[in-house]
Amino acid sequence: MGADLTGSADRGRAWLVDALGRLPDPDASAAAAVRRRADDILRPAGALARLDDAAVFLAGWQRSSRPRVTHPAGLIFAADHGVAAAGVSNYPTEVTAAMLAAYRANRSTVTTFAAVVGATVTAVDVGVGRPTADLRVEAALTPDRVDEAIDAGRDAVEALPAATDLLVLGEMGIGNTTAAAAVCAALAGDVDERSAVWVGRGTGVDDDGLARKRAAVGQAVARLGRLGRDDPLAVLGEVGGAELVAMAAALVAARLASIPVVLDGFVVGAAAWAVGRARPGALAHCLAGHRSAEPGHRRLLEALALQPLLDLDLRLGEGSGAMAAIPLLRLACAGVTDVPTFAEWFGPGAPGS
Amino acid sequence: MGADLTGSADRGRAWLVDALGRLPDPDASAAAAVRRRADDILRPAGALARLDDAAVFLAGWQRSSRPRVTHPAGLIFAADHGVAAAGVSNYPTEVTAAMLAAYRANRSTVTTFAAVVGATVTAVDVGVGRPTADLRVEAALTPDRVDEAIDAGRDAVEALPAATDLLVLGEMGIGNTTAAAAVCAALAGDVDERSAVWVGRGTGVDDDGLARKRAAVGQAVARLGRLGRDDPLAVLGEVGGAELVAMAAALVAARLASIPVVLDGFVVGAAAWAVGRARPGALAHCLAGHRSAEPGHRRLLEALALQPLLDLDLRLGEGSGAMAAIPLLRLACAGVTDVPTFAEWFGPGAPGS
Repeated sequence: MGADLTGSADRGRAWLVDALGRLPDPDASAAAAVRRRADDILRPAGALARLDDAAVFLAGWQRSSRPRVTHPAGLIFAADHGVAAAGVSNYPTEVTAAMLAAYRANRSTVTTFAAVVGATVTAVDVGVGRPTADLRVEAALTPDRVDEAIDAGRDAVEALPAATDLLVLGEMGIGNTTAAAAVCAALAGDVDERSAVWVGRGTGVDDDGLARKRAAVGQAVARLGRLGRDDPLAVLGEVGGAELVAMAAALVAARLASIPVVLDGFVVGAAAWAVGRARPGALAHCLAGHRSAEPGHRRLLEALALQPLLDLDLRLGEGSGAMAAIPLLRLACAGVTDVPTFAEWFGPGAPGS
Repeated sequence: MGADLTGSADRGRAWLVDALGRLPDPDASAAAAVRRRADDILRPAGALARLDDAAVFLAGWQRSSRPRVTHPAGLIFAADHGVAAAGVSNYPTEVTAAMLAAYRANRSTVTTFAAVVGATVTAVDVGVGRPTADLRVEAALTPDRVDEAIDAGRDAVEALPAATDLLVLGEMGIGNTTAAAAVCAALAGDVDERSAVWVGRGTGVDDDGLARKRAAVGQAVARLGRLGRDDPLAVLGEVGGAELVAMAAALVAARLASIPVVLDGFVVGAAAWAVGRARPGALAHCLAGHRSAEPGHRRLLEALALQPLLDLDLRLGEGSGAMAAIPLLRLACAGVTDVPTFAEWFGPGAPGS
């Protein structure tokens, strides 16, 4: 990623840079039609403003004046992290592979949530059992692995059924809240002690584990210098990891396909922020599913200027918080498409019309 | 309600007072079983704590170690208010009847939401076209109408299918956020200017309308003296209205049937608060579906010590915010019943077990 492009224009970093130069806008006419209808619906104006806004958003990206969430799809990117060896998680790296297997067997929280809300889940292995290098001292991913992860993220989106009307992004990777914190600190330009504001307990580490996470993040960002300002996407390969790179590519691929995206928690948000910093406006097709308990997530959502749909102190990852927001989006759509307007219910001269 | 009981023990206020003396507790064993399972589920301990808590709550009241939300029911109580003539709403009282018809024709927001989340809705007329007296100067309801509203609330719950596993309470009544504010101010003991903290814009009145609401509430609570302390339930008949009384009775009837209840917004919460003040612990079977945009609702949820599931600035009423929370409760249940434990997935000696 960044200046040192290799390979053909169809592959990896070259594709990503090219794609960021041709991002489509939403369909303003579909969005405006839903806005007009929302303003006339049989309820006090603005009574469900947050949901109406979501329906308008979906209409724009789905390019339809009848927004819907009929075929939501989840993509869960999984990878291992060399920094896990630094004692930054309560769990051994083997848990990443075990959870990948659980997703594929539909024996996990996110797949259970997906079944309840009527979504599909595809778990994509972008580096399970192939841990990154230690982000404290060297680039987590080689250029080849960056290209590979970008391709995987893009290909996963391109392989979705054509009917897909919403994409949930999630992740799994023991050690990846440390990586995400390093990404955020680098993008924010927070070095030394200040980088600690991005570090939380992740899966629930104790005070010693938290201190190790802070030290690892501090060491990582010190190594990067001004890279977060100069080449935001390169940060993902340097201190993020394969699932963060893949999610960045998936976000961009979804934008090219005009598929609205629901972001999950802190790790997904960190990947998204790099995209948004690389190209202003690149996240216009993204919603925040929830605000997690991870303290850096509040700060991150403020940086992304995204207001979350849910605020339940969830901190699982896997895309679970974004999945939990899907029913709200379905209600938002039905609230403008399936409820009559004042004029439709009362006839001409209706109150509120 | 209160000391001046009339009629048989089967009816109205006498039934309510008797019922409040025989409220069942939740099934501690079912709740404990779900708590144990939640603590072992294949995810970091506490990662979905808010949802796990909801599952434990549902298990206790459903008296089952396999909590579920398979047959949720909504009851929407509708009535008219004499105080509407004081210019406290943007809408004429005729809108109450029109909305009642819309609910019954499944042409409304709450019925649309119910269809999306798989709930039934029954709209109960407890005084549409029969407005209460002007709460500013006299008791809104006669003793007979209080008894009638209590019976209606109780009967509506008793008529629910036996399989009902969750109850959503909602309301409709032009003018009823003024009534609810008066109830809250009376229960809180807030008189004179202080009563204004409970008054918001409801359906969206302008500054003049807001001033009229504040004046009406101030006049109403001045009339009640210490009634809010001495006889909380009597406040509902004095300055509430038929739908508030009916909801109070429905809450108690649900408790007798051990059906968990999801409260909607400010008006439902005001009715609930009177029950909770009449008998401490009487609301243990209630969850807050959401925190509404009505400013008094934040204060009210604090008084009820309830943390809302959603916080989306909704302000429609009709039970819509509570309906919107149903999918979260379904996810909470599936999250403990349908996901394996660490031991089930990894076998003995699992990480996290």
